[in-house]
Amino acid sequence: MHLVVIGGSDAGISAALRARELDPSAEVTVVVADAYPNFSICGIPYYISGEVGHWSNLAHRTHADLEATGMRLRLDTLATSLDVDARRLAVREKDGGETTLAYDELIVGTGAVPVRPPIAGLADLGAADGVHVLHSMDDTFALERSLDRLQPSTALIVGAGYVGLEMAEGLTARGIAVTQVEMLSEVLPTIDHELGALVHAELDRNGVTVHTRSTVTGIARGDSGPARLHVDGAGPDGEPLAWDVDLVLVVVGVRPDAGLLTAAGARTGPRGAVVVDETMATGLPHVWAAGDCVVTHHRQLGVTYLPLGTTAHKQGRVAGENALGAAARFAGSLGTQVVKVFDLVAARTGLREHEAMAAGFAPVSSTATPDDHKAYYPGAQPITIRVTGDRDTGLLLGAQLVGPRGTETAKRVDTYAAALFHRMTVEAFSELDLSYTPPLGSPWDATQLATQAWVREHVLPAQVAQLVR
Amino acid sequence: MHLVVIGGSDAGISAALRARELDPSAEVTVVVADAYPNFSICGIPYYISGEVGHWSNLAHRTHADLEATGMRLRLDTLATSLDVDARRLAVREKDGGETTLAYDELIVGTGAVPVRPPIAGLADLGAADGVHVLHSMDDTFALERSLDRLQPSTALIVGAGYVGLEMAEGLTARGIAVTQVEMLSEVLPTIDHELGALVHAELDRNGVTVHTRSTVTGIARGDSGPARLHVDGAGPDGEPLAWDVDLVLVVVGVRPDAGLLTAAGARTGPRGAVVVDETMATGLPHVWAAGDCVVTHHRQLGVTYLPLGTTAHKQGRVAGENALGAAARFAGSLGTQVVKVFDLVAARTGLREHEAMAAGFAPVSSTATPDDHKAYYPGAQPITIRVTGDRDTGLLLGAQLVGPRGTETAKRVDTYAAALFHRMTVEAFSELDLSYTPPLGSPWDATQLATQAWVREHVLPAQVAQLVR
Repeated sequence: MHLVVIGGSDAGISAALRARELDPSAEVTVVVADAYPNFSICGIPYYISGEVGHWSNLAHRTHADLEATGMRLRLDTLATSLDVDARRLAVREKDGGETTLAYDELIVGTGAVPVRPPIAGLADLGAADGVHVLHSMDDTFALERSLDRLQPSTALIVGAGYVGLEMAEGLTARGIAVTQVEMLSEVLPTIDHELGALVHAELDRNGVTVHTRSTVTGIARGDSGPARLHVDGAGPDGEPLAWDVDLVLVVVGVRPDAGLLTAAGARTGPRGAVVVDETMATGLPHVWAAGDCVVTHHRQLGVTYLPLGTTAHKQGRVAGENALGAAARFAGSLGTQVVKVFDLVAARTGLREHEAMAAGFAPVSSTATPDDHKAYYPGAQPITIRVTGDRDTGLLLGAQLVGPRGTETAKRVDTYAAALFHRMTVEAFSELDLSYTPPLGSPWDATQLATQAWVREHVLPAQVAQLVR
Repeated sequence: MHLVVIGGSDAGISAALRARELDPSAEVTVVVADAYPNFSICGIPYYISGEVGHWSNLAHRTHADLEATGMRLRLDTLATSLDVDARRLAVREKDGGETTLAYDELIVGTGAVPVRPPIAGLADLGAADGVHVLHSMDDTFALERSLDRLQPSTALIVGAGYVGLEMAEGLTARGIAVTQVEMLSEVLPTIDHELGALVHAELDRNGVTVHTRSTVTGIARGDSGPARLHVDGAGPDGEPLAWDVDLVLVVVGVRPDAGLLTAAGARTGPRGAVVVDETMATGLPHVWAAGDCVVTHHRQLGVTYLPLGTTAHKQGRVAGENALGAAARFAGSLGTQVVKVFDLVAARTGLREHEAMAAGFAPVSSTATPDDHKAYYPGAQPITIRVTGDRDTGLLLGAQLVGPRGTETAKRVDTYAAALFHRMTVEAFSELDLSYTPPLGSPWDATQLATQAWVREHVLPAQVAQLVR
């Protein structure tokens, strides 16, 4: 049995590890496009910031760790085409040599590539000019070289999503004055405006210049001034904006790298991602796929595209089992996410109102600001929690939290995620037996105080009417 | 409709608040034995330590807050007897005057009283001698007066449970040299020995002298030396121990204060607690009870006695609803608990092996020490997590965690609590979509790395055998 895995990131390595764990006799070959298997893409901003010592620390496991599991790694090897009927994968090696690999089962985890927005001049500019995307280790090294070479004092970041925010912090930590441009109405547009505003304020406090409802329209090499790049943009009312900066970073999201599979006949779904079922089967015989290149089964939305490392790990594990003949199923995503921005933590799980509405729910929300722990114990700080539930069924639909570091906000969102997984009502959330000690919580946890605020606003009037009747 | 509630602590106040919220026309009278309604008993150690400014800050709500909800408080009023048939409650007021209150429905939340262990001399000693228990605000004031008057440089704490450990920290913070004596084999005996040992080491690091497997056998007024009390004890092998200290604190747990209800004919269960069903009905007509005076419905153990503030809040809320004619049910406890001891946090939820065994499960456990977040990001620290699951069914049975402050250990236990609530298997725990960002977690959260360690140890061999077969 020869299992070939394409992709050395979360999905591919998870699949290979699980396969080797379950069947130590399985021959497992992992085809990795670059020289950096099992690197933590999510850690790149912390390497750029200087918080991670050596870049090799970003590896979840070393090359030796991986090979010790019995998998074989073929680095710097690009999968170029797939012959499904013959079960052969064509690859090109670093020296240009082409060869084919025979497989019994194939798992594809080609991941995603950075989106390049339609900005005039962008296509003609690159790392040599101080214009960067940031997704792979090669992107990371290129950015690092620019930072060393240009010693930028100013940078502009296009995009204020997770990576954009982390990079705003990372470049600020290096003493670079950062301007951040976000097309949508608030930073971190994956959470509601009122919570994003808290993140915006944190950026302000740390000296990042933020432009929301603004776009970058063009980038050009600057004149012979101290700043090397000239950036044109448009503000909220279409008014022209212009910046002269030393460095530009374009981080506006990713799109699935699905070419290999679509060329072999795989179907695509949302955002061009490869369609898989919950077993990670592509429909092509003996071909499985997982991670950022495939659609995401979401427990509330059905099939969507929501690329996350956590999901890639889970999907990869399922693919690894099933390629060996098991019958595992991916239980589905809830889109649980968290980001630290300077000293603030923002998290979400489940659906926001507009997403829930589109999915046929009747969402209503309440926002509460309970303290993370009892106010009488020093250091209590409010967490802003927005709970969304279904007006008709009472079902919990989602939660968003923004709290200072140290308020256990990142793991409080997990309690909501567990409740959503089990389709609890907002009211039943108070039945959970959560931990309490005054320095770290309250008798009703902050998460429960927030759901109780929702109940008071949206359910209590009917409860009162029913009792009094 | 006149609802009378006995007890001004968690259960009673929760009941009264919920009743007033659900039926603003209900007349609600709360009979409070002392002058401190709605005080946080759990906060007392932090008042003694000096971390809480004024004692009045320990109130969850002020007297005025409570009365603003429309409830009427009768402070310093002791419920002395109950005429169930006549629906009348006899009370004695501070001035000694006796009267009776007529009620339509009665909720009893008389709580618990400190256990006084059989120690020679203890019955003859009290606050005047520097010998204290610690459960009520009056106990707190008495201890505070002793601390002011005696200016103790040494103290001995009998018991190393939650309160004993918090008080060891609190008295140490005041510069007092603390000796702690625990009868059982390790401190914090509500968690497994190997985890309790971590707490023990934290006490050592902070200068607390700990004696485990040791008992205090006698306390006497000391001779006219600098230390005021002479304490005799016995060590692990029965060898005599002796200490001369300025202050003794006896904190070895509580027992239900059930006298009022048993005198009225209520049945008692484990540890002498009043039997209630999940609706908080006592069986006596129109009499409900909640909190530390009643048995605890445990989702895994059935009826037991496990007095916790979180549980009292939930039970009180149920009683408050049902006294008004609703049909609420207490969903049950999982015994979720957490304590901070200096810079360590220890938490548990669900069952430990011996408890699970007694309840008919086939428990096996695994211990893992995953980092709280990715090791490449500064400040990662291991959390020791012991997962217990059922060998035959794969059900998650319990989890115990000990981690440094700042590792979100207190809220990580909540994810396990939510999983236990929904009777997940250990293996399915990895399906939960938990949050990840490198500074605060890992792609499989620490909680999932721990359940995966359990699966690898107890399930994987069978999985491998099945696949390879």
